[in-house]
Amino acid sequence: MRHVSRNRPFLLRNGAKDFKARKKWNATYLTNVMSGQNVNVALTPHGNADALISLPPTTSSGDGDVHSIFVKPYEIEEPFASVLQAIQAQELSDPPKQQADTPPTRYAQTQNDNLRNEYAPLFGDVPRSIPFARIALEKDPDAINFWLGNSHSCTALHKDHYENIYVQILGRKHFVLLPPLEAPCVNEKAVLAATYRPRSNLKPPTAAAAGGLAKGDLVVAVDEPVAYVPFATWDPDLPDENTTLYSGLSRPLRVTLEEGDMLYLPALWYHKVSQSCNEEGICCAVNYWYDLDFSGGFWSSANFVRSAGLLSMQKEETRKEADGQVCAKE
Amino acid sequence: MRHVSRNRPFLLRNGAKDFKARKKWNATYLTNVMSGQNVNVALTPHGNADALISLPPTTSSGDGDVHSIFVKPYEIEEPFASVLQAIQAQELSDPPKQQADTPPTRYAQTQNDNLRNEYAPLFGDVPRSIPFARIALEKDPDAINFWLGNSHSCTALHKDHYENIYVQILGRKHFVLLPPLEAPCVNEKAVLAATYRPRSNLKPPTAAAAGGLAKGDLVVAVDEPVAYVPFATWDPDLPDENTTLYSGLSRPLRVTLEEGDMLYLPALWYHKVSQSCNEEGICCAVNYWYDLDFSGGFWSSANFVRSAGLLSMQKEETRKEADGQVCAKE
Ligand SMILES: O=C(O)CCC(=O)C(=O)O
Ligand SMILES: O=C(O)CCC(=O)C(=O)O
Repeated sequence: MRHVSRNRPFLLRNGAKDFKARKKWNATYLTNVMSGQNVNVALTPHGNADALISLPPTTSSGDGDVHSIFVKPYEIEEPFASVLQAIQAQELSDPPKQQADTPPTRYAQTQNDNLRNEYAPLFGDVPRSIPFARIALEKDPDAINFWLGNSHSCTALHKDHYENIYVQILGRKHFVLLPPLEAPCVNEKAVLAATYRPRSNLKPPTAAAAGGLAKGDLVVAVDEPVAYVPFATWDPDLPDENTTLYSGLSRPLRVTLEEGDMLYLPALWYHKVSQSCNEEGICCAVNYWYDLDFSGGFWSSANFVRSAGLLSMQKEETRKEADGQVCAKE
Repeated sequence: MRHVSRNRPFLLRNGAKDFKARKKWNATYLTNVMSGQNVNVALTPHGNADALISLPPTTSSGDGDVHSIFVKPYEIEEPFASVLQAIQAQELSDPPKQQADTPPTRYAQTQNDNLRNEYAPLFGDVPRSIPFARIALEKDPDAINFWLGNSHSCTALHKDHYENIYVQILGRKHFVLLPPLEAPCVNEKAVLAATYRPRSNLKPPTAAAAGGLAKGDLVVAVDEPVAYVPFATWDPDLPDENTTLYSGLSRPLRVTLEEGDMLYLPALWYHKVSQSCNEEGICCAVNYWYDLDFSGGFWSSANFVRSAGLLSMQKEETRKEADGQVCAKE
């Protein structure tokens, strides 16, 4: 409760050691329990589900800016066993296969309460609710999510309006964390939204056909109707690119979750997440999302700080454009 | 703990009903227990300890602004019994004496842990600490204060960086409350600091001589060295005067503490406090100040909002000054 009230993360090392999932889950068990089930999986050429890609300079609007586009993955349904095998095969292939004719990266990452839905057969292996979180937050989780991927996937820096209890089951996850007050550092911009889809000269994708898709078959299609989504364009791992006036002031926290560790990731904290696999070539986690408490001053002041950051970015743009001029109208 | 984390006030009606102070305190008891003790008392002509007064237009700098000055009370030491009698006499005189030759308003209001010091004989009548506050705040009070005054005194709108448990013992207190996010509404300005003192052609004041001072003997002396203190110049009870662009958006909460009521007044909330007396002509309260928790994002974001408000005031001034001009340098 004190950590929630301070909006401050903490890590419970081995906090999930008694979860059945920790004792029972491995590739064989997961395959058996989920046998015959289809699941949603995100396909991307570079492990970049929900992330920015830079447009090549030739397509940029010519003002010298590198333009980005926000790309969602191509989502398909596949038998769970195939997803798991493809994730393992990619991880364990040596040397890694980078060519356009190799399979795309797969990440089971639907954040839609999937553990109580498509992964229901596994739900009995984790608690329905985390006791300390239920007491502190006075509610049960809105969503419980199952994550299965490998080291090729990376979740780009973003924030959620959820309190998050993140539990590592197999493999390791590497979090980079920024508090909400660092919003002015992350260079949030309205970015054109797009989605990966198979090249249109392929046959219409079916579950089976999609299974045969190669990296090179995925192309970026701008969403219709055209939409812009606000997204962080600064990456704490490339701190000198896409900076704002404030990026240099950011002090990212870095924490690695080992198997059985439990992270309290407070609402509105920016997080970037990469992963390492266990010896079976998988990385598997479960997380609990609790709605944030909008009733105090936290939500409004966090948004005010974010808005002030955005405004200062606009002013900085105006200043740059106006550059030699003495008088610039705001 | 939940209220602290939301920085949200609450009132415990009759929360102090079992305090010995509630059962024992009255004018006679206080006089007996404190007999022979000298106490610090604030003297002001209008009940305005630590408040703004407007300078008459002739002394203003001529730009049309009404200028204010922040005046601290004239502080003297007097026997407690005399203070109590003077407070009662002023309250019960009918009709009220407004003339310059009547005594100034007295308010025992030293906020320096006085209940564990000059009022120590009374300290046994209240708890040393408030159990729910000790649990929620994880600390004991920094200061416990005793307040004794009458309806002539009013505490101007201000904020403290303390968590406050305010307990009404005798009479009633009327609080006007504004959350920290309303900082941009209160028109905080750097105001010249001054202190009441006896006119210099009076004999040097001694405890006895001070007792004989009249309202008209108190004059305002600008502090030396000259100092400016940041102070709210907007008064929620005169909402159309001294406004900022945001004052009209303020939604003050108003609450009256009856005898035995306990208010949790969260850190950084603006409060203006006036009082009503019991049938003995006194208003008496006790409050507990706990240091605020500087460790989360609360302190920094509250100050950021306040600073943004100040900046917008400066811009508004600049805009007004620049008025007809098309180009104004910031
Ligand atoms: O595990 C990941 O890849 C991302 C986790 C995440 O973004 C979340 O739990 O909100
Ligand atoms: O009781 C009063 O007059 C003022 C109280 C106050 O300002 C406080 O408790 O901080």
